[in-house]
Amino acid sequence: MKERGLLIVLSGPSGVGKGTVRKALFSQEDIELHYSISATTRSPREGEVNGVDYFFKSHEEFEHMIEHKKLLEWAEYVGNYYGTPIDYVEQSLSEGRDVFLEIEVQGALQVKEAFPEGLFIFLAPPSLTELKSRIIGRGTESEDLINNRMKVAKEEIEMMDAYDYVVENDQVDRACDRIKAIVTAEHCRRDRVARRYKRMLEVE
Amino acid sequence: MKERGLLIVLSGPSGVGKGTVRKALFSQEDIELHYSISATTRSPREGEVNGVDYFFKSHEEFEHMIEHKKLLEWAEYVGNYYGTPIDYVEQSLSEGRDVFLEIEVQGALQVKEAFPEGLFIFLAPPSLTELKSRIIGRGTESEDLINNRMKVAKEEIEMMDAYDYVVENDQVDRACDRIKAIVTAEHCRRDRVARRYKRMLEVE
Repeated sequence: MKERGLLIVLSGPSGVGKGTVRKALFSQEDIELHYSISATTRSPREGEVNGVDYFFKSHEEFEHMIEHKKLLEWAEYVGNYYGTPIDYVEQSLSEGRDVFLEIEVQGALQVKEAFPEGLFIFLAPPSLTELKSRIIGRGTESEDLINNRMKVAKEEIEMMDAYDYVVENDQVDRACDRIKAIVTAEHCRRDRVARRYKRMLEVE
Repeated sequence: MKERGLLIVLSGPSGVGKGTVRKALFSQEDIELHYSISATTRSPREGEVNGVDYFFKSHEEFEHMIEHKKLLEWAEYVGNYYGTPIDYVEQSLSEGRDVFLEIEVQGALQVKEAFPEGLFIFLAPPSLTELKSRIIGRGTESEDLINNRMKVAKEEIEMMDAYDYVVENDQVDRACDRIKAIVTAEHCRRDRVARRYKRMLEVE
């Protein structure tokens, strides 16, 4: 029996660079993650291939998927639906592959509800660390600007609560390395490994 | 305020190659771990330096340390004491350095009791995985040999229970990579990072 793969969810505030990190990660040769393909009702752009870039669906098909709980998460943007088909994820996991999702915070919370055993990684803006020097170096920036940044930072820190890991996106390469380290480490977790060994010994 | 370092404990059954992995790990240039120096009552061997290889102690000094709970763990082998001085570990951790211990299973259990927040990594023999093919390929080995191997394997799996991670020592380099990944991942754990951010924002 094959060990079930991990579901890895990368999310974070908009503008943090989730897409850039995901692309950099999947451009690496040693990566063994499996990227989950989204479903959408928007029209294919030039060069986009059904089943590779997206699963292209009609509105009716998508609404049917929503109704029959065939989506791990979904959302509507400017008149089109976007979502993650469960079947594709489930099949990959049961084949022992690690599946990688890169989605918005709202979507990640939906996935967490449906799939609490997933691995939730929050991509944090480096501005959170920069904030400290800004606060200390006060005078160079207005009180309003600082206060606003503090407010945003506090919201971002609250957002983190639902996640298992936080990766700071200070440099794309370093963020990728940390994500890969997290996946490697999770595969070494004792409960997971011990379960595998125990199953192995029952072969007899 | 500096973030406290992690205490990383590498242990496993005798003969699994803990020392080899530790040496390979510390020969790497990008390693940021701090190796914990043991105390011992045995005489220095040629070239061994006090405070570098060991803290060399008299029997009286060592027993004084035991009595005053100045050791994270200790044991007696062939008439000499060996142990891990708490002060050295505590100081390194409070200076924000990750401290690495490589010790026997009995010692690891003592550390776990004194220091449950440590990171406990079990180095597993590759024989555990090889076992499967041996069992399947039965006939090439005697029943007794197989049964004995099964017994040992079961004991080793039971040993793992007290640990957070299991790293298989199939290849020394790969074992080192996994240990480094675990340390990196642990630094990304949400509770740790969020705590750091929260403390940062209180600077104001």
